[in-house]
Amino acid sequence: MAILAVGSVAFDAIKTPYGKVDKVLGGSATYFSLAASYFTQPRIVAVVGQDFTPEHEDLLKRRGICTKGIEHAAGQSFFWSGEYGENVNEAKTHRTDLNVFENFNPRIPEDYLGSEFLFLANIDPVLQAKVRRQITGARLVGGDTMNFWINGKQQELKETLKTIDVLLINDGEARALAGESSLPRAARQVLAMGPKALVIKHGEYGATMFFRDGMFGTDRQAFRAPALPIEDVVDPTGAGDSFAGGFMGYLASQDELNRETFKRAMFYGGVMGSFAVERFGPERLTQLTRADIDARFQRLRELTHLD
Amino acid sequence: MAILAVGSVAFDAIKTPYGKVDKVLGGSATYFSLAASYFTQPRIVAVVGQDFTPEHEDLLKRRGICTKGIEHAAGQSFFWSGEYGENVNEAKTHRTDLNVFENFNPRIPEDYLGSEFLFLANIDPVLQAKVRRQITGARLVGGDTMNFWINGKQQELKETLKTIDVLLINDGEARALAGESSLPRAARQVLAMGPKALVIKHGEYGATMFFRDGMFGTDRQAFRAPALPIEDVVDPTGAGDSFAGGFMGYLASQDELNRETFKRAMFYGGVMGSFAVERFGPERLTQLTRADIDARFQRLRELTHLD
Repeated sequence: MAILAVGSVAFDAIKTPYGKVDKVLGGSATYFSLAASYFTQPRIVAVVGQDFTPEHEDLLKRRGICTKGIEHAAGQSFFWSGEYGENVNEAKTHRTDLNVFENFNPRIPEDYLGSEFLFLANIDPVLQAKVRRQITGARLVGGDTMNFWINGKQQELKETLKTIDVLLINDGEARALAGESSLPRAARQVLAMGPKALVIKHGEYGATMFFRDGMFGTDRQAFRAPALPIEDVVDPTGAGDSFAGGFMGYLASQDELNRETFKRAMFYGGVMGSFAVERFGPERLTQLTRADIDARFQRLRELTHLD
Repeated sequence: MAILAVGSVAFDAIKTPYGKVDKVLGGSATYFSLAASYFTQPRIVAVVGQDFTPEHEDLLKRRGICTKGIEHAAGQSFFWSGEYGENVNEAKTHRTDLNVFENFNPRIPEDYLGSEFLFLANIDPVLQAKVRRQITGARLVGGDTMNFWINGKQQELKETLKTIDVLLINDGEARALAGESSLPRAARQVLAMGPKALVIKHGEYGATMFFRDGMFGTDRQAFRAPALPIEDVVDPTGAGDSFAGGFMGYLASQDELNRETFKRAMFYGGVMGSFAVERFGPERLTQLTRADIDARFQRLRELTHLD
């Protein structure tokens, strides 16, 4: 089934111990939709500037991604410049130019309104809520956020959370949102804010999914999926959005949403995140085959499963 | 088969957000042997002072632990006083009184020399090596260390590592020992120092076991075991030693040491660590049944396994 992703399509300048790139395609909707494209047909709603060329659009189209919802505005695209040191979990931001993204007001094409799956990437929670209201028949709505909104627009964010089925955030965001340092307790509090399920991403340690009792026919019992131990993390940019893309994309390819499909979705999230970090930018996510993905799924299984 | 544990038997004063205790039995050999006692017969070599009473000794004996190797010296036992805040991964030490432990010189009783399994808890690597040399017929030697020795006696530690089969340390220790921030790369470097296998403990995220190629009939492929998400970590003291006790204890109960038994040992390590933190001191580890342990093993399986 189709997934609609609303977020950023941007350019990044990235420096890591493995080298640097000056301007590669990036943004949450880019990573998400490329990762999801191996499972379903993603659609993007975003805004770009004049530096987004037909070649960039082709990179998405070649993966079967519908780009009709990408609005072209006068000016430059969202641009982020940052650096990762030895600790790949911490980015040092050099520059953030919102450019055309500053006035992003998502416009959903008519024929996207029936999307069965919706992913609200990390944008202003007011815009997330506005989009959410339009996709009335969604079977599953996923969402992301960040400390900037948790601190700056918490009330608006809490309104949005009431309309989201699965929130995907990292350890620090879960702690900040709940105001609670214990992750299992933070999870309980976030679930009380509305989401039916919560995925907390632990970076290199994997991710844990917590369910509100009885949701999706499952009990409260959590599920943990590993990340692959990777010696050479070339560029961690986009790993979280790629996780979300693998997670939501796999779910959109399934007839039923139940504990077992969510568990597998967590594994596919880990798989897509592990590919994303192997090259600069989203390059690796443009070259995969379903066989590559399933082979890595099998590696994650061997990494964690008893016979 | 019998396990010999050489380490500390001590007293702790502990404060956490859940309360405080003034003087509870603690020490690496205590937690290790209590956890291992559900799988095999542990023997302890340690030194205690006059504050270690027959009641304390009975607590160990009731779990079938042989205490003959505990030397009674004039003076007080090793005493540690510390506090954990909201972040249970960081202890703030108030006081460390080595007392009789300062001149600890492990003396191995004659009938312990044939122990098939040996655990060298976190003590001076020179003492670890001295003990190791005496247990000539050991099938498996596990060891622990800490930043104090990594920084202060690295050369001696590296000599000891050549004689250890499985090193069990945490993330920070692995990074410090290897001088490398990437855990998978640090693992490769630590394995090159001698151990056949390395278990890196990630606290609440679980633990990863790395194998040197071909060791124990296994390939280099790592294995990850989860920790249980626990809302109320009452007292994290001893969790790492309890992990080691479950890990080594289970192995000592098995006929073969291969990838599959190591994987299960990782799960049993996680199980015993999760029990240890539910009460102050080692209390919880004195009251379990094998059924409690196997039920929690099953929970860890459900937490991580696809159907």
